[in-house]
Amino acid sequence: MSEAVSTHAGPATAGRPQSTQGPQIQRQFVNFAFYKLDPEFRRLSAEEKQRAREEFISLHSQAHPGMICLSYSTAGLRPDCDFLLWRISLSADDFQAQTARINKSRLGGFLTTPWSFVSMTKRSMYIDKVDPFHTAESRTHIIPGKRKFLFVYPFVKTREWYLLPLERRQELMDGHIKIGNEFPSVKLNTTYSFGLDDQEFVVAFETEELRDFLDLVMKLRETESSKYTHRDTPIFTCIQLPMQKILDQLF
Amino acid sequence: MSEAVSTHAGPATAGRPQSTQGPQIQRQFVNFAFYKLDPEFRRLSAEEKQRAREEFISLHSQAHPGMICLSYSTAGLRPDCDFLLWRISLSADDFQAQTARINKSRLGGFLTTPWSFVSMTKRSMYIDKVDPFHTAESRTHIIPGKRKFLFVYPFVKTREWYLLPLERRQELMDGHIKIGNEFPSVKLNTTYSFGLDDQEFVVAFETEELRDFLDLVMKLRETESSKYTHRDTPIFTCIQLPMQKILDQLF
Amino acid sequence: MSEAVSTHAGPATAGRPQSTQGPQIQRQFVNFAFYKLDPEFRRLSAEEKQRAREEFISLHSQAHPGMICLSYSTAGLRPDCDFLLWRISLSADDFQAQTARINKSRLGGFLTTPWSFVSMTKRSMYIDKVDPFHTAESRTHIIPGKRKFLFVYPFVKTREWYLLPLERRQELMDGHIKIGNEFPSVKLNTTYSFGLDDQEFVVAFETEELRDFLDLVMKLRETESSKYTHRDTPIFTCIQLPMQKILDQLF
Amino acid sequence: MSEAVSTHAGPATAGRPQSTQGPQIQRQFVNFAFYKLDPEFRRLSAEEKQRAREEFISLHSQAHPGMICLSYSTAGLRPDCDFLLWRISLSADDFQAQTARINKSRLGGFLTTPWSFVSMTKRSMYIDKVDPFHTAESRTHIIPGKRKFLFVYPFVKTREWYLLPLERRQELMDGHIKIGNEFPSVKLNTTYSFGLDDQEFVVAFETEELRDFLDLVMKLRETESSKYTHRDTPIFTCIQLPMQKILDQLF
Amino acid sequence: MSEAVSTHAGPATAGRPQSTQGPQIQRQFVNFAFYKLDPEFRRLSAEEKQRAREEFISLHSQAHPGMICLSYSTAGLRPDCDFLLWRISLSADDFQAQTARINKSRLGGFLTTPWSFVSMTKRSMYIDKVDPFHTAESRTHIIPGKRKFLFVYPFVKTREWYLLPLERRQELMDGHIKIGNEFPSVKLNTTYSFGLDDQEFVVAFETEELRDFLDLVMKLRETESSKYTHRDTPIFTCIQLPMQKILDQLF
Repeated sequence: MSEAVSTHAGPATAGRPQSTQGPQIQRQFVNFAFYKLDPEFRRLSAEEKQRAREEFISLHSQAHPGMICLSYSTAGLRPDCDFLLWRISLSADDFQAQTARINKSRLGGFLTTPWSFVSMTKRSMYIDKVDPFHTAESRTHIIPGKRKFLFVYPFVKTREWYLLPLERRQELMDGHIKIGNEFPSVKLNTTYSFGLDDQEFVVAFETEELRDFLDLVMKLRETESSKYTHRDTPIFTCIQLPMQKILDQLF
Repeated sequence: MSEAVSTHAGPATAGRPQSTQGPQIQRQFVNFAFYKLDPEFRRLSAEEKQRAREEFISLHSQAHPGMICLSYSTAGLRPDCDFLLWRISLSADDFQAQTARINKSRLGGFLTTPWSFVSMTKRSMYIDKVDPFHTAESRTHIIPGKRKFLFVYPFVKTREWYLLPLERRQELMDGHIKIGNEFPSVKLNTTYSFGLDDQEFVVAFETEELRDFLDLVMKLRETESSKYTHRDTPIFTCIQLPMQKILDQLF
Repeated sequence: MSEAVSTHAGPATAGRPQSTQGPQIQRQFVNFAFYKLDPEFRRLSAEEKQRAREEFISLHSQAHPGMICLSYSTAGLRPDCDFLLWRISLSADDFQAQTARINKSRLGGFLTTPWSFVSMTKRSMYIDKVDPFHTAESRTHIIPGKRKFLFVYPFVKTREWYLLPLERRQELMDGHIKIGNEFPSVKLNTTYSFGLDDQEFVVAFETEELRDFLDLVMKLRETESSKYTHRDTPIFTCIQLPMQKILDQLF
Repeated sequence: MSEAVSTHAGPATAGRPQSTQGPQIQRQFVNFAFYKLDPEFRRLSAEEKQRAREEFISLHSQAHPGMICLSYSTAGLRPDCDFLLWRISLSADDFQAQTARINKSRLGGFLTTPWSFVSMTKRSMYIDKVDPFHTAESRTHIIPGKRKFLFVYPFVKTREWYLLPLERRQELMDGHIKIGNEFPSVKLNTTYSFGLDDQEFVVAFETEELRDFLDLVMKLRETESSKYTHRDTPIFTCIQLPMQKILDQLF
Repeated sequence: MSEAVSTHAGPATAGRPQSTQGPQIQRQFVNFAFYKLDPEFRRLSAEEKQRAREEFISLHSQAHPGMICLSYSTAGLRPDCDFLLWRISLSADDFQAQTARINKSRLGGFLTTPWSFVSMTKRSMYIDKVDPFHTAESRTHIIPGKRKFLFVYPFVKTREWYLLPLERRQELMDGHIKIGNEFPSVKLNTTYSFGLDDQEFVVAFETEELRDFLDLVMKLRETESSKYTHRDTPIFTCIQLPMQKILDQLF
């Protein structure tokens, strides 16, 4: 990386990049965008607030073809954000398009984004529950947003981890997975951020029972793989809610 | 965690999650929500401030069925916040409901939340002193808010701690507890945040005598368990006060 | 700490806490409250500024019975604050009372508190130079605020320090104190924050000659005790000034 | 460094500095300036926004003789910035001149710069694709901005790295470069910031395929050189867009 | 430090402090004050801006007897500040006096100070180029501000450094200085902050050729003394400019 020189940019690489892997696998982009409402918005007149509310709910309810977008509230749980948009798409452009719509809205003049994480799946793993055509595939794919609670955090392993032999890493992961299997109520899914964002992974867990996740994480502390964790914060506890209800909490 | 794949979301886990533990124990959610008043509020007219004050006191005095909510001032002690709401409930939804009411209030347009910590008890351990039905149980439960001073901090242990044999950890905790017992005036209680928030524990101490807590913590530094502390800040010194008195301090 | 359970709150501890130490020693609370003026205040009319100035000087000059309150300027020295109130009292309530008065003032609508440190003395060590009754005791007590310069910083030692045998620590401190004695112009005093605030100590040095303190600290770097320092920043260089002169610097 | 004394400034060095290296090589300055639009701008009238938009697009389209300036959007991807200006020039003065023009614009009253990185090339390595005179040289030079995606991050190696023997470092870099060559679709180029900015390098990667970069970085984690990384964040995923389209996303 | 008790303040130290060193050497105070203009200022009318500009230029051009004050622009180079005042004086009071004048100016209502570093020289090392009386002394003193570029950073060494034997430290510094001598175009000077500010040193380099400094710092990475660096950021690249030109860049 650091020794790279400009001659890397030769004619050989001028054309369309060639993947070193076999046939292209559909991979999905994932974005966890956390929003915070500026308290100043609350000082506006009831009428102004109502107009902003209606416009934003309408904006949010519009279908984003090819993009899954789920809404969660973090109000009263996290100090630094109010709600989360969990976005999944085949193209990062879709995140930009929706962000543009939010930016142009009335509420957009009072929203900030304290956190946002970008990642990719290894293959298409999410499907849309409102897509009429998903059937057979659904068994091996995740339909996100089917549980009340979502736990999200960026994850970075120590560099020592990556220098362990592959078999040793598998061994450590086996111990980790064994404990995960004791908590079938917790659905875990992992996305990859290497080079795209500050973390290596964005991990998201869905469950109906908050306490199960707490107990799982507590138990995982005692696995040996745990000592290869470099960073696993901030951790966001999110509650799935329709946008209408989220805005009802905020103003 | 990081190796999890989407097939975890199979039909086997589609139903209601099953806990791996025995009969369900009532566990409580705890939230330490720290608020800061925007100094800009102080520039408003005396009348506007008075209306905001009355509305907020009325809002705060409303009973939140099933939720304990205690108020503490940190004014003049912490630079980054003004007061704390210590909330305890059987459901995290209650925190959201009360937060929504605050957000809709006049004062809500000038409040920010520099810190907020979410945690759970291992079992129901708090009861409400204003609940007419608590009697026998009270002996083994905590009635929070009965002392003038509250000390709160998030707590993270080193990963080495969790890899010690259980007996060794018990041994170290015994030394720790022994010193705690020398300070009977300090009531300590621990809640758990693994996976729910950035810390592993939120620790809260209640006492009538500030100096006793200082001496206790100083003495605990010399225990061997102390070296397994990864993070134990920020530390909040809080003084219990009715909301009316807190607002009298703030504007 | 982390293993504490709710049964700690039994009837045995319900009464007035009993100290494990002998007869109660008078101990003082100390607060170093750093204030910053919002630049927006400077845009107000000359008249508005004058009124705020007069009100604040009057407020500050009022006697706070039982509380020592000294003012220092950090303008032009620290980027993150403008002045310091060094407050000493037998009760933390006094800090809250004075903070309330500041919050209610005109200037209070434009003041923020980037830093504030709370601590305690081991025994009463400060006395008030304007208190007519201090005489004999003065010889063993500090009359704070008698030098032009004050250096303040929060201080945290490594956990390794506390696990050294007491004799070893004494030995290391002896080397430290020996160097301190070479600089008699620097008056040092230490207060304790264990459990009350993020640091373990708040250290304050008073001197007439800035350079003496610089040379002292530089020389202390070479003592062995120096390697047990975990954190000793931020460091504040403060110049004692009456509030009138401080405000003259600020707007 | 720390022992340097003022006598270094003698007559011998008073004249024009003499490089210790052979003939002067043309080296380019590089600046990655990240901008954020204050949400308050969105509250302005449609007309005011339109005027600011036109002015800024016109300003941006003006040729900056001798300076390459490319625009990228980070909207919807990074929480802390909205767009990037990638600037390359023979003189740092050009960055100041363009910054002055931005500062004087209407939009400039609402733009902040959360991040900005300054660096230099080892020799002239970038050329301008709109410069009519570039031909033969183009083969060994980079024409920046020819791919859709740009990944930028500041990079700091551990001090241990620099104390390894040169041959050992070359060996480690060989392993690193070997993997880079497996991803010909990713064009990498490195610039140097030692002493000019907080990082040692600013690394920029261009590609048409986001996933290729993700896979490359993930694979590089397993090289031994990886453990000499001290810091490689924040990482910015940027999408090349004309300024007009960027502003369309922002308001 | 931490074991200090109040009896240190006895009659023996009540008088004027006595330095432990021989005859007093004139030592200078140094302040690097970095300013940022609030973008909101740019939204003012052209007339208001013009008045603020004229007032500030006039204020800045006034002689500060005994104080050297040089101005540098960081616009377009650092994201967190716009300009630097490099101030040198025999008394810290002079920094406060000039800061007071800035605070009272129109522009002062829109200026913040993201960074400010205070330090001292070991002896008087700077002289004023506009002082008519400097002649013979000039050969051993620095006339600051004679080069286009200034590089400033706070510097903290590891505590291990200070516990090395003096001869070993000298040896390591010799290797360091040897490389410095290969770059005669770079004038380096070191000031001391121990106990006065968060860093141990503030290091300032002046040069006409940016690239020489880059190459020097890069080469110094390979010296053994480099591994005793604990912190050497933030690093500021500054361009000397008269205040008039700096303001022309800012609005």
